[in-house]
Amino acid sequence: MAGTKEFTKQVSTILKAGPGFSLDAADPESTPGYKGKKSDGVALLAAQDGRLDVLQEMLFAEGKFGSSKRVLLILQAMDTAGKGGIVEHVVGSMDPQGVKVAPFKAPTDEEKAHDFLWRIERALPAAGFVGVFDRSHYEDVLIHRVHGWANEDELERRYAAINEFEAGLAEQGTAIVKVMLNISRDEQKTRLLARLDDPSKHWKYSTGDLKERAFWDSYMEAYQLVFEKTSTEVAPWYVVPANKKWFARIAVQELLLEALGKLDLSWPKADFDVSAERAMAVQS
Amino acid sequence: MAGTKEFTKQVSTILKAGPGFSLDAADPESTPGYKGKKSDGVALLAAQDGRLDVLQEMLFAEGKFGSSKRVLLILQAMDTAGKGGIVEHVVGSMDPQGVKVAPFKAPTDEEKAHDFLWRIERALPAAGFVGVFDRSHYEDVLIHRVHGWANEDELERRYAAINEFEAGLAEQGTAIVKVMLNISRDEQKTRLLARLDDPSKHWKYSTGDLKERAFWDSYMEAYQLVFEKTSTEVAPWYVVPANKKWFARIAVQELLLEALGKLDLSWPKADFDVSAERAMAVQS
Repeated sequence: MAGTKEFTKQVSTILKAGPGFSLDAADPESTPGYKGKKSDGVALLAAQDGRLDVLQEMLFAEGKFGSSKRVLLILQAMDTAGKGGIVEHVVGSMDPQGVKVAPFKAPTDEEKAHDFLWRIERALPAAGFVGVFDRSHYEDVLIHRVHGWANEDELERRYAAINEFEAGLAEQGTAIVKVMLNISRDEQKTRLLARLDDPSKHWKYSTGDLKERAFWDSYMEAYQLVFEKTSTEVAPWYVVPANKKWFARIAVQELLLEALGKLDLSWPKADFDVSAERAMAVQS
Repeated sequence: MAGTKEFTKQVSTILKAGPGFSLDAADPESTPGYKGKKSDGVALLAAQDGRLDVLQEMLFAEGKFGSSKRVLLILQAMDTAGKGGIVEHVVGSMDPQGVKVAPFKAPTDEEKAHDFLWRIERALPAAGFVGVFDRSHYEDVLIHRVHGWANEDELERRYAAINEFEAGLAEQGTAIVKVMLNISRDEQKTRLLARLDDPSKHWKYSTGDLKERAFWDSYMEAYQLVFEKTSTEVAPWYVVPANKKWFARIAVQELLLEALGKLDLSWPKADFDVSAERAMAVQS
């Protein structure tokens, strides 16, 4: 990609919420590992589309030939942080045939009658697919902690259940990419006001948004705990600065590229006699 | 779209398989209603992306606010005709959050234990969604007729069941767009050979492809009957010349734009007090 400004460091390394990570110290305005400006980022996103597309097609092709590899992108964030934009502009560049987006809202009565991971398991991507969770099982240790819907014992049980669940997925060949889009409190206010000022965006606005915003600090504490308890070797958390939408998009795109790259994909070998088929096709 | 060559006629009118339509007389090489060449078509596809995207977002927004409108694109064709390319390049330009692609393969044992429309009903798009069927219930009157897996009485029952089913969908607010991608026998041979000559495409090739190709004429007769029996007022068939991939893509894009246009979409009105919310947001 001559002329395109790329990341100068490995994104999975610099954005990983490893031991000692402090959300409080992470700057939502920053662009770690990237020296370009907005126009560079926009160009990079477009330039990498093709690579992401080919890798995803290879994953899909392997899936058709019996591989159990798959990718699961988990998106968590405060309202307006840009989950939708990631789905549209990063995930959206892949072939819809091989992508499955699962949004998680407040659970239904049927879902509530089961353990919290029940609905998650049902939404997992099939072999060969890139699955995207727009919110996830992490709501059960985030909003539930913030509003006291689960006590400390239950929350501890859930962290442990999540780690076990994700370890199992990883063992079965799922590359898990957990992303928290990190916006600042001020940036959220700006974006909420922008939604209110644009009638074509009113449908995205909920009066619940301001109610949850009032618990901002509790949410940040709950996220910090999530990183401490569930950022594991096989399924680490990445905290992506998201005040600059263009940066969040290239960062998540790069995380997906890295995850797909690590799956060691290749085009499946033909399970038929190519030259015999060719001879028959010519005659057909 | 200054400088972009557009269709000179309404695509839904010129490509409709209405009374008297003859598949035999339809030219897979033609570009009806379009005077541009390949580069113009490629430019048009890109130029219309944004419009398609906005209409689909409006459909999705209305769905969130209780509307039952939705779109169902049904794709049928001989192998290699370009269904996958339509999904990737036309459907793929829309937001994956609001799109549901359902591929139909040979039915499973569970599916076979039910009537042929059972698995179709389960795959219908939710309100606000654009659903895409990659093959469909029409296989039950195409491959089943060609190979004699259903007798004439049963096939007649199925045509009638399909018409009733689709009329019900239309009445509930589903805009149905049924597309047959029409390639020539020679073009299929060229494309099968191209797949055989490219190892990155072997995974798309099946030895079943040549077996079905041997029944070409029977398939064309079965398609002709499908158009005669199931091209209805509320769910007409469109036969899209598909030897030129670029043309098939702009034609299907235009059919989707027309279908969405007819749904009379608009941004949902806020169901909350915008100025009161704004005042609270400023203070928050």
